[in-house]
Amino acid sequence: MEYRRIKEQDKDGEETDDVESLLGGKSASLSTGSINNVIALGPSSSELSKWKRKSIVTLALTVLTSSQAILIVWSKRAGKYEYSVTTANFLVEALKCAFSLAALARIWRNEGVTDDNRLSTTLDEVSVYPIPAALYLVKNLLQYYIFAYVDAPGYQILKNLNIISTGVLYRIILKKNLSEIQWAAFILLCAGCTTAQLNPSSDHVLQTPFQGWLMAIVMALLSGFAGVYTEAIIKKRPSRNINVQNFWLYVFGMVFNAIAILVQDFDAVANKGFFHGYSLITVLMILNHALSGIAVSMVMKYADNIVKVYSTSVAMLLTAVVSVFLFRFHLSLAFFLGSIVVSVSIYLHSAGKVQRQQ
Amino acid sequence: MEYRRIKEQDKDGEETDDVESLLGGKSASLSTGSINNVIALGPSSSELSKWKRKSIVTLALTVLTSSQAILIVWSKRAGKYEYSVTTANFLVEALKCAFSLAALARIWRNEGVTDDNRLSTTLDEVSVYPIPAALYLVKNLLQYYIFAYVDAPGYQILKNLNIISTGVLYRIILKKNLSEIQWAAFILLCAGCTTAQLNPSSDHVLQTPFQGWLMAIVMALLSGFAGVYTEAIIKKRPSRNINVQNFWLYVFGMVFNAIAILVQDFDAVANKGFFHGYSLITVLMILNHALSGIAVSMVMKYADNIVKVYSTSVAMLLTAVVSVFLFRFHLSLAFFLGSIVVSVSIYLHSAGKVQRQQ
Repeated sequence: MEYRRIKEQDKDGEETDDVESLLGGKSASLSTGSINNVIALGPSSSELSKWKRKSIVTLALTVLTSSQAILIVWSKRAGKYEYSVTTANFLVEALKCAFSLAALARIWRNEGVTDDNRLSTTLDEVSVYPIPAALYLVKNLLQYYIFAYVDAPGYQILKNLNIISTGVLYRIILKKNLSEIQWAAFILLCAGCTTAQLNPSSDHVLQTPFQGWLMAIVMALLSGFAGVYTEAIIKKRPSRNINVQNFWLYVFGMVFNAIAILVQDFDAVANKGFFHGYSLITVLMILNHALSGIAVSMVMKYADNIVKVYSTSVAMLLTAVVSVFLFRFHLSLAFFLGSIVVSVSIYLHSAGKVQRQQ
Repeated sequence: MEYRRIKEQDKDGEETDDVESLLGGKSASLSTGSINNVIALGPSSSELSKWKRKSIVTLALTVLTSSQAILIVWSKRAGKYEYSVTTANFLVEALKCAFSLAALARIWRNEGVTDDNRLSTTLDEVSVYPIPAALYLVKNLLQYYIFAYVDAPGYQILKNLNIISTGVLYRIILKKNLSEIQWAAFILLCAGCTTAQLNPSSDHVLQTPFQGWLMAIVMALLSGFAGVYTEAIIKKRPSRNINVQNFWLYVFGMVFNAIAILVQDFDAVANKGFFHGYSLITVLMILNHALSGIAVSMVMKYADNIVKVYSTSVAMLLTAVVSVFLFRFHLSLAFFLGSIVVSVSIYLHSAGKVQRQQ
């Protein structure tokens, strides 16, 4: 029954606004993952549709992450951050909540309320949702302390440890195997991204004191754990509508970001007001962060953390290339070499699939 | 018959001075490559002995190339090059000739003169030997002109194009297949070596004019072609003693280096004398070059150009690490990243073998 509904969808031909249809309706197709695994032995049309969906969310994430970085550069060029970052983060979570509710409203109108798309939940289901938000909060608080040991460009370089931590935790927590070739590809991805970000002052990173390394590793583990744990939560109930899952994730995101406002920016917000220093760029950045946050959830649902890491790494490279045209950036030789290594890594990740024991 | 002789050698147990025995006697085992391919289906003891020999020559090349680079740094620290490089090159060829003759003399004494180890040759056999020496001469002459477009550190970086040209020509001329994973590994080797050599002024390379790139590519092709052609010559007659093959290669090396002296350094040599500016370091460098030249030939005979490229790349990395202790060099972050990429490349080269269709 479920299977037949997907077949019918495929007959509709090209979907003109795939991303919107993913965000909004057609949630029926989401529940068929496990069924397909049983029924479809070859690359059937439902496999093709899954592949299409996976590609679209990955592409959306890549484009949104690139434009996000470009907006950050733009906002830096336009002047200093005048607004408080914690209020902006809170608004991002609130906006994502609103988007999820709007998508759900449309689904309820079209398909009625079912067990899979109703908002009400059990304590058993909802109890795990605060964990990723809490992990991100701890990570963001740590971020203030790591700058005592590392400067900002150094921190950008150490952040690439995320790639390795995500891979390791993905293996341990989700118990999914990567082939040896894919592990090699993952190490290359980390080395390639770091190489692409090298600049003449990068060598300072090697002088990072032990505490700095420790914090960078803890932060990479927190961030990797939050990502992998989110995937585990979302995939635990494959038939549950992604917008409901997002709604609950983002509600706790709002709660924890409210805590961050209280801890870090209470005085500034109380004296100058919540929206002090907001500009058009700030609004665009918040909108972009909200959309890329949703894209990340979609990638977790329809693909996995590995795809997410590759997607954001490619976005980093794309950003640099686009910045050449927008901001007259110069690409370094290190950037070219890093890009080559990342490209080979992507090839090896897919070539390594053949070997994987399933 | 040939096969049995190898088996008997293996029974002798551990060879105490493998490198010398390779340079000297036991030439009978050289002729069995093709026989083994037919007889031995599994990793037999002769396979093991071949593997051992391959490892020893590879290790020798790596160590010699590393110490070569260290001698160059040492000589630079001690002062400028006072001697003429062409006379040193000539002496290297002469010394290699002498070593080959000495090794042959020992073999003749022990085993008598056979068809495989006699020095006299046919025009058919000897006619191809001048080609590698001529190619190197053209490449060395071009080297003087490329510095009009690229500075010395830039040239060091562009020299890594050799890696790619060797891979491509190895595939085309020797018609040996590399698997897709091995090709990916080769691209990584080139990117990794270049990354490891990056320094703050490396970005100049990107401003290299078109003529500079063209010359760098032509030089890479000449050098790659010379290497691959040497392997083709040496492997064409597997049963021929390597020392005879070396003798003829080096005789033509002497001839072409004599031409180089006449073209480039005639005045200096005529006025100041052949050995002007020679020091202890110069002598050590000549000795080292001669030994590593012989190691290269051995690698061509018992392994191949791909092994040679990996061996010299690892030597480059080793040199940097040793220089930290000898000359208090600082290793850059780029060096670490490049070393990681090279290490993964080595792993992939061997992992890629499994896939190769034979």
